[in-house]
Amino acid sequence: MVLRKNLFDLPEGVIYLDGNSLGPLPRTAKARVADMIQDEWGGQLIKCWNSAGWMAQPSRVGDMVGRLIGAPVGTVVMGDTLSIKVYQALAAALRMRPNRKVILSDSGNFPTDLYIAQGLIQLLDSGYELRVVDPEDVAAAIDDLAHSAGAVPVDLAACACEFAVGCTYKYLNGGPGAPAFIYVRPDLADAVDPALAGWLGHGAPFAFDLDYRPAPGSERMRGGTPPVIQLTSLEAALEMWDGIDMHAVRAASLALQDVFIREVEARVPALRLASPRDASQRGSQVSFAFEHGYAAMQALIARGVIGDFRAPDIMRFGFTPLYLDEDDVCAAVDHIETVMRDRLWDDPAFMTRQRVT
Amino acid sequence: MVLRKNLFDLPEGVIYLDGNSLGPLPRTAKARVADMIQDEWGGQLIKCWNSAGWMAQPSRVGDMVGRLIGAPVGTVVMGDTLSIKVYQALAAALRMRPNRKVILSDSGNFPTDLYIAQGLIQLLDSGYELRVVDPEDVAAAIDDLAHSAGAVPVDLAACACEFAVGCTYKYLNGGPGAPAFIYVRPDLADAVDPALAGWLGHGAPFAFDLDYRPAPGSERMRGGTPPVIQLTSLEAALEMWDGIDMHAVRAASLALQDVFIREVEARVPALRLASPRDASQRGSQVSFAFEHGYAAMQALIARGVIGDFRAPDIMRFGFTPLYLDEDDVCAAVDHIETVMRDRLWDDPAFMTRQRVT
Repeated sequence: MVLRKNLFDLPEGVIYLDGNSLGPLPRTAKARVADMIQDEWGGQLIKCWNSAGWMAQPSRVGDMVGRLIGAPVGTVVMGDTLSIKVYQALAAALRMRPNRKVILSDSGNFPTDLYIAQGLIQLLDSGYELRVVDPEDVAAAIDDLAHSAGAVPVDLAACACEFAVGCTYKYLNGGPGAPAFIYVRPDLADAVDPALAGWLGHGAPFAFDLDYRPAPGSERMRGGTPPVIQLTSLEAALEMWDGIDMHAVRAASLALQDVFIREVEARVPALRLASPRDASQRGSQVSFAFEHGYAAMQALIARGVIGDFRAPDIMRFGFTPLYLDEDDVCAAVDHIETVMRDRLWDDPAFMTRQRVT
Repeated sequence: MVLRKNLFDLPEGVIYLDGNSLGPLPRTAKARVADMIQDEWGGQLIKCWNSAGWMAQPSRVGDMVGRLIGAPVGTVVMGDTLSIKVYQALAAALRMRPNRKVILSDSGNFPTDLYIAQGLIQLLDSGYELRVVDPEDVAAAIDDLAHSAGAVPVDLAACACEFAVGCTYKYLNGGPGAPAFIYVRPDLADAVDPALAGWLGHGAPFAFDLDYRPAPGSERMRGGTPPVIQLTSLEAALEMWDGIDMHAVRAASLALQDVFIREVEARVPALRLASPRDASQRGSQVSFAFEHGYAAMQALIARGVIGDFRAPDIMRFGFTPLYLDEDDVCAAVDHIETVMRDRLWDDPAFMTRQRVT
């Protein structure tokens, strides 16, 4: 059983099928951030770097993330954004193999990976090439877990992957702008060049040496001052995963998806399944194509069913079983049926009102 | 008049002379973060990127910082850490002048700048050299405002400086891990290569193009998803600067420093002034050298006077006139006099207790 609905502060009347963009608010995160601000920052000020454990927080929280992606203790650290961590992993991987000049990525990646690679290649200016191919043709040295940490089982220790990066504001519910994580395979961690040689990745930051000397292990991937408030929110959010088996999360998500697909196809034939019918090929989202998808999604959102829209015609729904159950899914389908039956997507007055607000 | 003591939540009995490391908690920051978490993240979820202005926040807050450093509207954006922003500014500056191969920095810089430059040079691997000289010999293209934004008057519009970066958790009281800022001179902003080509620095992030095309102006220096919770705290903290003239802040800080130096020298002759006696050569800190400085600072902190210590023998005190007045300074000197007169730094039992807690 993975349902933890009572641990989330979900707005009344909302069925939230967009946890793949921004996870909802865990009740403990709100309280923990308030306490941290008042008692730690407010009450103990600068002492907190030691007394409240702020300095160790990026590694402590990294280990909590590590447990969810099969990464050994000490191999994951938190910090920066996913963009920066992609850059760091990519730059470090290039440094390890100076004679390899092709960066392979796939066109199915969120384009941030491609932008970052393009920027790095331009900066290096020494014959690197970015080759973008179809997703099925890639076996990359860097895995991007933005869309799987907290959603599907991942076992980094069992795979050959050298670096992995991901974000924590989706399925891990860390809050808007929660920091990213980076994993370095343990046998590489003492040799890897962190590229972004931040102060807190130094082996002895408080010696104030003029020369950079990386910390042992994955700690060297730390950058500047960690975002303590965001990390506090994330740390509270991660505690709810205690005792949750990621295989059970995956199974529960697929069960919700099956109900959703079956009910939509039975009751709303105008929507055409755009996701693979084979469950093993899906992540935790289900997409349906509909010509007036943008307007239909706006009508759904106005009724409290929050999914998202991707051009040209994709209505996308996410199934995160920590705070969604079968009743929610069936209620969402009721709303979809009403919107389509009553052609609520075809109400210009309604759409105008929506745009104004 | 720049005193805003009632806007801060300072712990009872504490005289805080370490705002140069971490600014104290503004009362509004606590309330604003709580509201943002509950009403925005909790109540409106993903819609907040538009409805609550999260997407525009890095530029909106950037303009608030800009007003304090003489930067025109639209030239400053928030994000990442100072380490990352130093890297970005340095990489962008190098790209503008491919034939110039020497990076000049000074030994008085906080070493993060040197580490970042060393890492970048290693990555570029094409004949760059970092030359570290005495502070008085440098006229750099990049200014690092970590230690002056919010402390001394800065007029970026009037100087030739091309890039400037700084942090916001010291004198701007944004909270631990508050994001950094970066300024690009307006005539360069449309041509500069952002180097860290983040998704939100793209000209049309929601077009999901496969190719990176930078946004117009300084917006291109944005990276990934902004840290909304930290930015909300910072935004609240910045509002208290409305109507404050930075020259008045500087004058008030120097007046407090003068009182402090005069009283310490008159009453505690064992402490030797380590900062320049000429006020125009000082920032907002005053340092005294004392052989047992570490132990003496611990004894002071135990009595509620919080400064910091730098090896081998420097006791450092910061004077931030938004929440410190002359009474605080005199009370701090009373404590210093007591600690020195009663040799509280020489109490092994006391020092052991301090280390344990």
